[in-house]
Amino acid sequence: MFFHFEGMPITLRPILSALLFLLPLLSVRAEEGMWLFSNPPRESLQANHDFNLTDAWLHHLMRASVRFNSGGSGSFVSADGLVITNHHVGSDAIQKLSTAERDLLRDGFIARSPDEEIPCVDLELNVLQSIEDVTARVNAAIPLNATDAEATAARRRVMAEIEKESREATGLRSDVVTLYQGGLYHLYRYQRYTDIRLVFAPESSAAAFGGDPDNFEYPRYCLDFALFRVYADGRPLPVQDFLAWSPVGAQAGELTFVSGHPGRTSRLLTSAELLYLRDHFLPASVGSLHRREVLLSTWSARSLENARRAQDDLAGVQNGRKVREGNLAALQDPAFLGARLAAEAAFKARLRDTADGAAALAAYDRIAAAQSALADKALRTRLLSTGQGFWSESFSLARTLLRAAEESAKPNGERLREYSDARRESLELKLFSEQPIHPDLEIVKLADSLSHLVASLGADDPLVQQILAGQSPRQRAAALVNGTRVRDVAFRRELYAGGSEAVRAARDPMIELARLIDPEARALRLHSEQQDEIKQQAQAVLSAARFALEGTNVYPDATFTLRLSCGTVEGYEEDGQPVPPITVAAGLFERNRLQQNRPPFDLAPRWAERAAAVDPATPFNFVSTHDIIGGNSGSPVVNRAGEFVGIIFDGNRQSLSADYAYSDVEARAVSVHSAIILEALRKVYDAGFLADELLHGRR
Amino acid sequence: MFFHFEGMPITLRPILSALLFLLPLLSVRAEEGMWLFSNPPRESLQANHDFNLTDAWLHHLMRASVRFNSGGSGSFVSADGLVITNHHVGSDAIQKLSTAERDLLRDGFIARSPDEEIPCVDLELNVLQSIEDVTARVNAAIPLNATDAEATAARRRVMAEIEKESREATGLRSDVVTLYQGGLYHLYRYQRYTDIRLVFAPESSAAAFGGDPDNFEYPRYCLDFALFRVYADGRPLPVQDFLAWSPVGAQAGELTFVSGHPGRTSRLLTSAELLYLRDHFLPASVGSLHRREVLLSTWSARSLENARRAQDDLAGVQNGRKVREGNLAALQDPAFLGARLAAEAAFKARLRDTADGAAALAAYDRIAAAQSALADKALRTRLLSTGQGFWSESFSLARTLLRAAEESAKPNGERLREYSDARRESLELKLFSEQPIHPDLEIVKLADSLSHLVASLGADDPLVQQILAGQSPRQRAAALVNGTRVRDVAFRRELYAGGSEAVRAARDPMIELARLIDPEARALRLHSEQQDEIKQQAQAVLSAARFALEGTNVYPDATFTLRLSCGTVEGYEEDGQPVPPITVAAGLFERNRLQQNRPPFDLAPRWAERAAAVDPATPFNFVSTHDIIGGNSGSPVVNRAGEFVGIIFDGNRQSLSADYAYSDVEARAVSVHSAIILEALRKVYDAGFLADELLHGRR
Repeated sequence: MFFHFEGMPITLRPILSALLFLLPLLSVRAEEGMWLFSNPPRESLQANHDFNLTDAWLHHLMRASVRFNSGGSGSFVSADGLVITNHHVGSDAIQKLSTAERDLLRDGFIARSPDEEIPCVDLELNVLQSIEDVTARVNAAIPLNATDAEATAARRRVMAEIEKESREATGLRSDVVTLYQGGLYHLYRYQRYTDIRLVFAPESSAAAFGGDPDNFEYPRYCLDFALFRVYADGRPLPVQDFLAWSPVGAQAGELTFVSGHPGRTSRLLTSAELLYLRDHFLPASVGSLHRREVLLSTWSARSLENARRAQDDLAGVQNGRKVREGNLAALQDPAFLGARLAAEAAFKARLRDTADGAAALAAYDRIAAAQSALADKALRTRLLSTGQGFWSESFSLARTLLRAAEESAKPNGERLREYSDARRESLELKLFSEQPIHPDLEIVKLADSLSHLVASLGADDPLVQQILAGQSPRQRAAALVNGTRVRDVAFRRELYAGGSEAVRAARDPMIELARLIDPEARALRLHSEQQDEIKQQAQAVLSAARFALEGTNVYPDATFTLRLSCGTVEGYEEDGQPVPPITVAAGLFERNRLQQNRPPFDLAPRWAERAAAVDPATPFNFVSTHDIIGGNSGSPVVNRAGEFVGIIFDGNRQSLSADYAYSDVEARAVSVHSAIILEALRKVYDAGFLADELLHGRR
Repeated sequence: MFFHFEGMPITLRPILSALLFLLPLLSVRAEEGMWLFSNPPRESLQANHDFNLTDAWLHHLMRASVRFNSGGSGSFVSADGLVITNHHVGSDAIQKLSTAERDLLRDGFIARSPDEEIPCVDLELNVLQSIEDVTARVNAAIPLNATDAEATAARRRVMAEIEKESREATGLRSDVVTLYQGGLYHLYRYQRYTDIRLVFAPESSAAAFGGDPDNFEYPRYCLDFALFRVYADGRPLPVQDFLAWSPVGAQAGELTFVSGHPGRTSRLLTSAELLYLRDHFLPASVGSLHRREVLLSTWSARSLENARRAQDDLAGVQNGRKVREGNLAALQDPAFLGARLAAEAAFKARLRDTADGAAALAAYDRIAAAQSALADKALRTRLLSTGQGFWSESFSLARTLLRAAEESAKPNGERLREYSDARRESLELKLFSEQPIHPDLEIVKLADSLSHLVASLGADDPLVQQILAGQSPRQRAAALVNGTRVRDVAFRRELYAGGSEAVRAARDPMIELARLIDPEARALRLHSEQQDEIKQQAQAVLSAARFALEGTNVYPDATFTLRLSCGTVEGYEEDGQPVPPITVAAGLFERNRLQQNRPPFDLAPRWAERAAAVDPATPFNFVSTHDIIGGNSGSPVVNRAGEFVGIIFDGNRQSLSADYAYSDVEARAVSVHSAIILEALRKVYDAGFLADELLHGRR
């Protein structure tokens, strides 16, 4: 599943790129690219596909596209505020609405009338309204001859200032986005929506048929969609820009477009960075995911209620494990990595022949030095700063309370970015969320990560000893989780309002733990940000050198902002066998039969009952050549007419190298076909009224 | 499950002990101890339990006890060669008899007549016949002033010589066992049996009801037993010493005895060794098990046939993970470890006040130095010498072929121990086993471990580069597994007969891989053995010092040789709640209902059908205070009359610290009650004839 994966430490935040290497072993076509809406590939679409991309077409698509703050994409599909996304993008929200007695994730949900639609707990949707270039203002704010640290601080200050001004002037969420490693700074303004209600969700066994085993595989049979409705002032939001529903859906061979929010790519990492990923970051990350997967699987196996409580966490971990293992396999493949290294060597050779190439060559060295400085502190950063040593919602809330109090006392421009005025609303939405938090699961997770912390940093580490306070990891976790009050929303509101004094007076054990580690955690974060700044400035130099040598028809690395991807619905070959572009409903029942209905290949009761009613020839899932990545989950696929023909939910296994390079040879995006959505709503769920709303664009 | 866990590197082979620390926090009673049959705790049994342990009683029990070379224990239970053990001890053999069409592990098996009993593929049973003290001869063979290396070589030589002589003189398998860190050397002579036939196995869902989630937990409802029959000359072996079946079975509160083969304990590790385990060995081991568990689980989930093929591997890995996590939790608990460290400090303080204490104090330092030398090479030893970097049957067979050819050219006394003349038959039994090996699973396992090897040693390591030969781990694994012929038994026989020349001429890629790494692998093994020798000699000094200061009523650490453990059937308290000593059949059906029959809490079809026929009050599993450890699985539990009352199959979670110290507060051994065995055979399996054979001791 193409989650926007949040587990990455801050040191590996988007390393932006300005141009991609042409890898000798990978075919690259017009399909490649995650294009800015402000700079789409008009010429190549015209030349290769005879398609005239108009401003009106693009603007309509932009306003119909939706970002989920839980890490995915979606789109408006009716004038009455109806939004479609993936079930797995909505699952966090659905999980939070579920209880032991009423498991919406497992059993699905259908609101048969508007008053049955259930308000979500803490979901935030963003719809992009405008893009403004603020590069000149940002650059002007950096003093000449500033040190790296001064430049970082000045940039943070001016970005916060721009965001705050915009927020106050327009009332819109305003984010300054760094593109092309600081080659460009764009101000993205979003309309925020927070009254989001659940309209329809299939059973998780239908949405994620095949579960983890089939994740990142193809052929597939997943009904991975869910419907929400945006409300404003207590009524469905009237929407002008929504996607019309194609009467036929995606057709093999046709040109289509994906509009969504790819999270992060790393296509211009230097060899120093790639080798670090291969040799250190990815093995550690895979190890940590294995550990968490075993923990959550075994805990889930103890009882059905445990399984329900851990389901969403576990799905995320399993998904992350597949992604990271795929990343690592790509970098451990000498053919793949060798091509990247050779391309860098070739580029450096050209630089040596260029008059001002020395500056770019020196930039490579600065990146390597920064990477090495990051590596030195990577372990403690991962455990203490990104908080993997304290895996629990309770710790995360405790730290947010502690830091919110400290940061709010500072001028806006000097705060950690997530505490700036422009982000306050989103922060509060999360902090005051009524999401259920289960102390038993919290203890299990925290105990495991404390045990890992002890093993990693050593039991004799002075900070570790203070953290454990003479107890075993298990005892300490139980004491912290049982002792803290942060799971009480009223308590959080009280402390947030009361500031540092109230936070200190509470003497809450989890907050005191966050305080204990915060000096080092903050220092580690600062260190990471400074090294990232060095890298960013060096990448800007490389970027300029590449522009000069190789031209400017480029797109930036993904930044979880809206992008346009172009591609065709097209099968591929695997081990010499052709894989067809589109699956049909009959395949679902066949695979279920072969697997003897055992989970996760079991049919939900409704599907078993209604099997005969479903037209076996209905297109179910399809693959296409779009250049996508985590965060694109839930992105609409539209045809030349701008009509909805499907919804992205995954890539195949071969696409897992897309972090580092695009290929259209075997790598494919995987979508739910629009036809099976209508067929399922009518024939399986008796929800023809929703099919009608999709087809007609209104209730 | 109490497997004798084989995953430990050679550097952590039995660190023998001569006396146990009295831990201030753990209550220690007469129950503690894994006693030699040649030195049982007669006085304490007389004093505490008014039980007169006679030589005849002991000798009968010894001859009725059976060792499984797959890593467990068992006992004769009829005059016609019938042997009872755990299903999970027999599962390796049962798996090897299973195919995709006929899954005996999943579906169980009942031989309804003698000619339906199925010969096992490569099972070897050993029955202890005699124990002889050879300490004087071993010690006499070590030259005065020998260096560590010379002493190691001389000891290896004389042990091989004694074993060979005994083998030739008696025809019995003859093993010299090192006890009390070289305080004693005993020659154990065993009758070997290799014509073993499967008589009865329940479904794995009945044997391991609750699967991994319930493993090492209590209360339990596992029918964890299986029946085999030993044949000699094509007929059931007539057996004089077999255990009579108790008409009532285990009773709460009664004194009972366990006769079995505990694999390994580490109760006298020094602080240097314990800290190494806590900080390095156990975290690495847990990480490796997590990795394997995720690999096998995900591969199993892809299809039912995958699941069948990986089932036995997966169960072993999951079991190992629970053991290691339990070990680590014990050592990460400051109360537990602190007591151990304090005891060592107190003992050292006493040594300082003793005239010749200096030698013992110096021995501690030598152990710490040896441990540090082992730690320096631990990573490469694990990957290259113990072979974790090449996880596959194919590699293991290839290395055995390579080394057998090289070792057989050396004098018997200079060979690696497993290639000595005395062990030839067991080696050949394994090497020529017809066990099914599945190339698809082999590739998956080998690819994963090669990937781990690259990540651990670095892709630029020269040996790693030779191992991968320019391919990705996945490609290389496929090439090796598909290219080797070692899975063909005829090929193995040919190479084994042909010696080094034949092996070299075969140019088999997997054997050539084994050859490539063998210089370093052998050097690492030698290094480990030398450090172990240093530790062993130092431990002998400590042992003598302890004898002098604390007396001699002691038992040695476990060595996978026959031991007697004494204990009572007794419940315990957990989180303040009493846990009853014996469960009954009704509890099985109740737990199944609460878990809604989902695996691994599902009832096998026969059990679902016959539920009403089973007497709900039948005793099912029980707990007792016996001091046991991995390898004790399948050990008979007998009463004062020497009658079979149950069979050990597990310990509870609280017993997982037993590697390092015994406790009877919460730690318990878990057994199948003899009553449920009869009840199940009669009421569920229509196998009353087997129940009758058990009750009457003959067919």
